[in-house]
Amino acid sequence: MPFDPESLKYDANGLIPAIAQDFASGEVLMMAWMNAESIQRTLDSGQVTYWSRSRQAFWAKGETSGHVQKLVEFRIDCDRDCLLLKVDQTGPACHTNRRSCFYTVVQNGDEVITAAPMSA
Amino acid sequence: MPFDPESLKYDANGLIPAIAQDFASGEVLMMAWMNAESIQRTLDSGQVTYWSRSRQAFWAKGETSGHVQKLVEFRIDCDRDCLLLKVDQTGPACHTNRRSCFYTVVQNGDEVITAAPMSA
Repeated sequence: MPFDPESLKYDANGLIPAIAQDFASGEVLMMAWMNAESIQRTLDSGQVTYWSRSRQAFWAKGETSGHVQKLVEFRIDCDRDCLLLKVDQTGPACHTNRRSCFYTVVQNGDEVITAAPMSA
Repeated sequence: MPFDPESLKYDANGLIPAIAQDFASGEVLMMAWMNAESIQRTLDSGQVTYWSRSRQAFWAKGETSGHVQKLVEFRIDCDRDCLLLKVDQTGPACHTNRRSCFYTVVQNGDEVITAAPMSA
């Protein structure tokens, strides 16, 4: 069946959550949002482009930082309301300069930081 | 720092997305939603409990199906608006009886189903 981005289920703001996972290690790097046009741009270019809710603008990941995400695999969930992107991540995915945004773990009721920012 | 579920950033409906990942294989199994109370129940019980948007009720994963998710690790992202749960999943995570909800891949513009339902 041909894939049509318009066939997905978007929220009231026309957005769908997209999980980025390192294609090689399986590490979950981040979660961000896409609209239909950013999905089309991602598929057309092979470089992941999100929709920035704070800036209300397309967010070509790594455009300014160089920390680009090359699309390796594009997956849709059973309800068509969430995406899983397997990516080839250059450098850190997180704006804190860590590889993954999920560097805080809850252990015995406390928050523990498990990763330091990567050196430049 | 002690972890307080109320310190997270919830959407207008009081919900936060939670990604469930197989703690051993790294496979991303599903994405669902939690509110502060479902987070507390998850941490207290060690069994993952979501909030069902369709039923507007707590959703103790596997309560009826037996396909429970035992919590192995609870992670928060940098913006405190997304969760990553590493889980020990019994059986399929997906309501279609597949291990993961992300069984549809887009390849060369077509949707391809990559996994069959698990046998009972």
